[in-house]
Amino acid sequence: MDAVKSALRGQRIETPSWAYGNSGTRFKVFAQQGVPRDPFEKLADAAQVHAFTGVAPTVALHIPWDKVGDYAALAAHAREAGVEIGAINSNVFQDDDYKLGSVTHPDPAVRRKALDHLLDCVDIMDATGSKILKLWFSDGTNYPGQDDIRARQDRLAEALAAVYDRLGDDQRFLLEYKLFEPAFYTTDVPDWGTAYAHCLKLGDKAQVVVDTGHHAPGTNIEFIVAFLLREGKLGGFDFNSRFYADDDLMVGAADPFQLFRIMYEVIAGGGLGPHVAFMLDQCHNIEPKVPGQIRSVMNVQEATAKALLVDRDALAAAQSAGDVLGANAVLMDAYNTDVRPLLAELREEMGLAPDPMAAYARSGYFEKISAARVGGAQAGWGA
Amino acid sequence: MDAVKSALRGQRIETPSWAYGNSGTRFKVFAQQGVPRDPFEKLADAAQVHAFTGVAPTVALHIPWDKVGDYAALAAHAREAGVEIGAINSNVFQDDDYKLGSVTHPDPAVRRKALDHLLDCVDIMDATGSKILKLWFSDGTNYPGQDDIRARQDRLAEALAAVYDRLGDDQRFLLEYKLFEPAFYTTDVPDWGTAYAHCLKLGDKAQVVVDTGHHAPGTNIEFIVAFLLREGKLGGFDFNSRFYADDDLMVGAADPFQLFRIMYEVIAGGGLGPHVAFMLDQCHNIEPKVPGQIRSVMNVQEATAKALLVDRDALAAAQSAGDVLGANAVLMDAYNTDVRPLLAELREEMGLAPDPMAAYARSGYFEKISAARVGGAQAGWGA
Amino acid sequence: MDAVKSALRGQRIETPSWAYGNSGTRFKVFAQQGVPRDPFEKLADAAQVHAFTGVAPTVALHIPWDKVGDYAALAAHAREAGVEIGAINSNVFQDDDYKLGSVTHPDPAVRRKALDHLLDCVDIMDATGSKILKLWFSDGTNYPGQDDIRARQDRLAEALAAVYDRLGDDQRFLLEYKLFEPAFYTTDVPDWGTAYAHCLKLGDKAQVVVDTGHHAPGTNIEFIVAFLLREGKLGGFDFNSRFYADDDLMVGAADPFQLFRIMYEVIAGGGLGPHVAFMLDQCHNIEPKVPGQIRSVMNVQEATAKALLVDRDALAAAQSAGDVLGANAVLMDAYNTDVRPLLAELREEMGLAPDPMAAYARSGYFEKISAARVGGAQAGWGA
Amino acid sequence: MDAVKSALRGQRIETPSWAYGNSGTRFKVFAQQGVPRDPFEKLADAAQVHAFTGVAPTVALHIPWDKVGDYAALAAHAREAGVEIGAINSNVFQDDDYKLGSVTHPDPAVRRKALDHLLDCVDIMDATGSKILKLWFSDGTNYPGQDDIRARQDRLAEALAAVYDRLGDDQRFLLEYKLFEPAFYTTDVPDWGTAYAHCLKLGDKAQVVVDTGHHAPGTNIEFIVAFLLREGKLGGFDFNSRFYADDDLMVGAADPFQLFRIMYEVIAGGGLGPHVAFMLDQCHNIEPKVPGQIRSVMNVQEATAKALLVDRDALAAAQSAGDVLGANAVLMDAYNTDVRPLLAELREEMGLAPDPMAAYARSGYFEKISAARVGGAQAGWGA
Repeated sequence: MDAVKSALRGQRIETPSWAYGNSGTRFKVFAQQGVPRDPFEKLADAAQVHAFTGVAPTVALHIPWDKVGDYAALAAHAREAGVEIGAINSNVFQDDDYKLGSVTHPDPAVRRKALDHLLDCVDIMDATGSKILKLWFSDGTNYPGQDDIRARQDRLAEALAAVYDRLGDDQRFLLEYKLFEPAFYTTDVPDWGTAYAHCLKLGDKAQVVVDTGHHAPGTNIEFIVAFLLREGKLGGFDFNSRFYADDDLMVGAADPFQLFRIMYEVIAGGGLGPHVAFMLDQCHNIEPKVPGQIRSVMNVQEATAKALLVDRDALAAAQSAGDVLGANAVLMDAYNTDVRPLLAELREEMGLAPDPMAAYARSGYFEKISAARVGGAQAGWGA
Repeated sequence: MDAVKSALRGQRIETPSWAYGNSGTRFKVFAQQGVPRDPFEKLADAAQVHAFTGVAPTVALHIPWDKVGDYAALAAHAREAGVEIGAINSNVFQDDDYKLGSVTHPDPAVRRKALDHLLDCVDIMDATGSKILKLWFSDGTNYPGQDDIRARQDRLAEALAAVYDRLGDDQRFLLEYKLFEPAFYTTDVPDWGTAYAHCLKLGDKAQVVVDTGHHAPGTNIEFIVAFLLREGKLGGFDFNSRFYADDDLMVGAADPFQLFRIMYEVIAGGGLGPHVAFMLDQCHNIEPKVPGQIRSVMNVQEATAKALLVDRDALAAAQSAGDVLGANAVLMDAYNTDVRPLLAELREEMGLAPDPMAAYARSGYFEKISAARVGGAQAGWGA
Repeated sequence: MDAVKSALRGQRIETPSWAYGNSGTRFKVFAQQGVPRDPFEKLADAAQVHAFTGVAPTVALHIPWDKVGDYAALAAHAREAGVEIGAINSNVFQDDDYKLGSVTHPDPAVRRKALDHLLDCVDIMDATGSKILKLWFSDGTNYPGQDDIRARQDRLAEALAAVYDRLGDDQRFLLEYKLFEPAFYTTDVPDWGTAYAHCLKLGDKAQVVVDTGHHAPGTNIEFIVAFLLREGKLGGFDFNSRFYADDDLMVGAADPFQLFRIMYEVIAGGGLGPHVAFMLDQCHNIEPKVPGQIRSVMNVQEATAKALLVDRDALAAAQSAGDVLGANAVLMDAYNTDVRPLLAELREEMGLAPDPMAAYARSGYFEKISAARVGGAQAGWGA
Repeated sequence: MDAVKSALRGQRIETPSWAYGNSGTRFKVFAQQGVPRDPFEKLADAAQVHAFTGVAPTVALHIPWDKVGDYAALAAHAREAGVEIGAINSNVFQDDDYKLGSVTHPDPAVRRKALDHLLDCVDIMDATGSKILKLWFSDGTNYPGQDDIRARQDRLAEALAAVYDRLGDDQRFLLEYKLFEPAFYTTDVPDWGTAYAHCLKLGDKAQVVVDTGHHAPGTNIEFIVAFLLREGKLGGFDFNSRFYADDDLMVGAADPFQLFRIMYEVIAGGGLGPHVAFMLDQCHNIEPKVPGQIRSVMNVQEATAKALLVDRDALAAAQSAGDVLGANAVLMDAYNTDVRPLLAELREEMGLAPDPMAAYARSGYFEKISAARVGGAQAGWGA
């Protein structure tokens, strides 16, 4: 149990700056009270999540949504608030030039522009001390014939190589894959195999990131996790959950058993450590932002705790005996355990309130920001 | 062949006003040149689609996107441009009050507001002469437990009954179903069964509309079409196509064989007539608007022509003989026929250019609107 | 807590006779030791499940798999073993005549033969005292055009009406729907809407049965449950679980959170009682049979216990306040509770061993049947 | 047009011996008249498909379904009938030992047995002159925890390496992937990425085979084809079609547009040649066997012909101009062309009847085998 607690105490879950701004669907973005107007306020909110959970000390940025004049100042501000800058997320999907693609666009001038943005992101990493560049490309096509599938792979490979070469010794990039959306016929990095193949050619500083909402229906995500860990190519997670497509619900909300199975493979594959980045990437369209992040961090913790409780010796014994029901029962015993008391105890040992949701609600932070953040333009995906 | 041509000549396909405005995904709306700034300009564009295809004489409106002070004037303007106002589409998903639902919202005041909007839409029908009210509700929940599934059905039933009672003798409403989006856990009208059950209780003026992009993966849409026609409950179609979810691609673009099978069931079930409304409901995010609609109308025509060419006697004979390959071959013979020459001939008989796409391109209309529509706010989903 | 225990004590879960025989996929049926050779031995095994769980007192039969000369004798044998005959499952898919369908076959002679079998099943109900006839039709087509979708509905309606008329006053039939398999293009009862529409026309003795493995990917099953309960048309469940298609895994094995949500809707909709039949319908292809059933019964009990623990007042309050996270948290609190101690306690109060799996293993029953059931033909789907 | 005809004349499509035997679903195998009793009769039927289409000169074997004492004699018999032995398909899923896996089984003795079978298959290749070993593993698990995902990959890699080392200089193996079935939780080679990663490590004689029915819903198969061709890792196809899962319908029957898009990527990627094996792998559960194969060969030919007709210069021009509708229209123009006259003409130039289906029906072959093949055990999956 000490080992379990120690592992949980050491776990790090990164929250994304964009989760604190407004978000929505193509049908409507519902604005919320107290939403940050700039990256500094986003970091302040993220610091609250860390303050109440104790395991969320870093914050991912999204460029240009979090563009500032002085990134060193932003990093200093973060530290003062109690957090650090985490991964830098590039964004090459919101400029009018990117209508038909960014790094895979048929026009070399557009590709150049996109690549320059990616290189700028590495500059920002240098300035902020970030070690991870997250690359997600919305690139793809909507109609059969619209563009040449293979030529787009050539262009993608060229851009990735250029970014790779720019990385510093202690920096790496994580390539994200996604089945569809916003592209509706082909996506240039649609699955883990595509991301893996590109990363493999480039070297150790290129790894795959698994966004739990980016798969075809029925995909066994924990298999991919186990496979990538075996290959040394799992760079991290973008956690969220979904019932249908890329719904971006709170991680663990749609299928907590799946999250547990994923965390079990992470642990079994030696992935519970700083070499695998555990990041949230989800949007709170209708629920409040800071509590949505706190609850999500707790959900990851609960899944991790259960996965740590699996009796791996008993499991291995049942597996090698071919005892189907017995092996499954070992896993289910851990899953069916109520780990909330354990986590409450751990938090108290860490000097935190046992119930982060209740503690945050009591803190008055929401009332404070609702009163203070009046006027100005609320942050969102548009900026 | 005369009967085929006659049926094709009599076919009516309605285009939606919102297809002429800007649209996109939650990631980005790419603005296009020459996009209308108001409902009058949308109707002008829709009139072009009819001018070049000859079978798109009506235009659906979306309220409040097409809100004007004087609907009679709008209808007159449409007639001058050569088209008529078609279905009225209600919109109860873009007001801040609708964050947790409209007619199924837990708060009766919000429900009342939504219902008032629906009743206003019937007023607009009275003013424009529209016979169809299309009801799509984005209502649903994102998280298990968020609201009571059954209570929401009670609220839905109450609102539908109130709208039904307000309909005039020659008016009807079409209830639309959708698997998901923007709601990500439950949707209050998620499938045809739900829509059917509600319509059945209300009476003949309530029917189901099939949006071809709103089903779970693997759903056999032509079965639903055949079933609803058998029950007298198929009110119309919202045509579009999709590879993944509600992609809103041009109808027939993703799976032309499926569109053919749907049209075959329409014809076999006696649905090719004014009592079933054939409407496009799709968005041209990256392709030009007017050509996108023209091409879509042509795709429906081609699928219809092929379906009309099915040798139904031969098919029935093979079916009753249990000749699996023979029956399939009869259907495929029609599908594999190139009907473009037939449609070109028909257009010439109708006094139209044989190739509507080329004729539109030659017309200079796009250049004209691109030059003329400068300044002002382009229409889109936001207004 | 007394109410919770009382509800759990009163719960009844029916096991299927065919779960005790061999089963597999089209690739291979792996035979197991100790498998019954006839319906009498199946009933003996089923009696073990009841003996160790206390809540599985009835056993469903499948005709002709469980065909015997004297059904009254079979029923008496069951009672002696400590169980009763439950639902009668008709089987019109394994005769060579049914290659293109049974009650929807184009040939009236085949339809007549299928109908006669269904009527024979009602005779068996009369002889055994069964109150439920379960109707599943594998009918459908593999190729577009193979048969007329609508004509097949007409034939289906005719057969259902004939069966309905034959039912006694205290008998009912449950119509099952299934997306696909063995039919690969259309299935004649593919979804709940189709089953509902047919049952609605016939009357109160026709209801829908929800097989949890028979839906398209992404379908929200608990919505269907809530809807059918609201309509008075939920007749029962065929429980099992699946990751992909109709995988027939142990109920609760693939997505225990989904099973909990389903049971919550059952309880909220007043469905936890004898008017809704809770039946297992799953096959243990690689795991041992009797333990597979015991574990499945326990999984249903655990989901039910958690659903009973939901604080419905708190939930209703959060829902009407529009508190998305609060309402979700009420549900999750119940789900995250470890109910195994509660169920162990209940079993001891019922005079049972607290751990049915361990107790069965200790009993030596498996060793006994393995030794005794040597020679003869093991039961399976083929007979 | 000469180049198109020449390409079509040179196309080779392999039919599978098992398509001529009985097959079905887990629910029922419907026996057909005239079905072969042994591999010799299967080859005779396959020779008919070649005789009427002119492009199906090879036949794949399945071991042990096609086990004979003297493979050289079988090859000679094939040559006499006018065909040759093609790929050897290994089968390590039908022995009782393989209940929990074959090459990935936890027990090393079972793994050894499975490996021995694979090596035997290479012996058969040596005896028959086959150049391709097709490896499909049903290996996987049904329940979370049942076995260790990663350990199974280690075992798989070990077996693949042993088989690879045994291959002769002009032999290669094709590794097949499949989402699910018969394994219902994990499959050890579930997707192209897994197959690719294993093949990449082994070398040029290991390639991926794409079975068109083995993907998750929504997967873009032509993307995978283009990607594997770019990597030099596409070894061949197992053609069939599906609406739901691995339905094994005739290729091109469910989505002919998809087959066209796949063939377009094959051609664009330089894959239309002997280095990519075009094999059918489908089962005719309810339709007659030989005509089912003839029709399938024709469907591949039609899709290939359409793909060859794509005006690639016009396509490239539209693509580089960013003309979305124009590029799509180039593709659709080819797809909408009726290529049946072209193929009829080609067949006549090849000395064949223009309509293979009609010619086969007229030939009296079916009547002949129905009369002759009486008694004995019909071939099927079980032997």
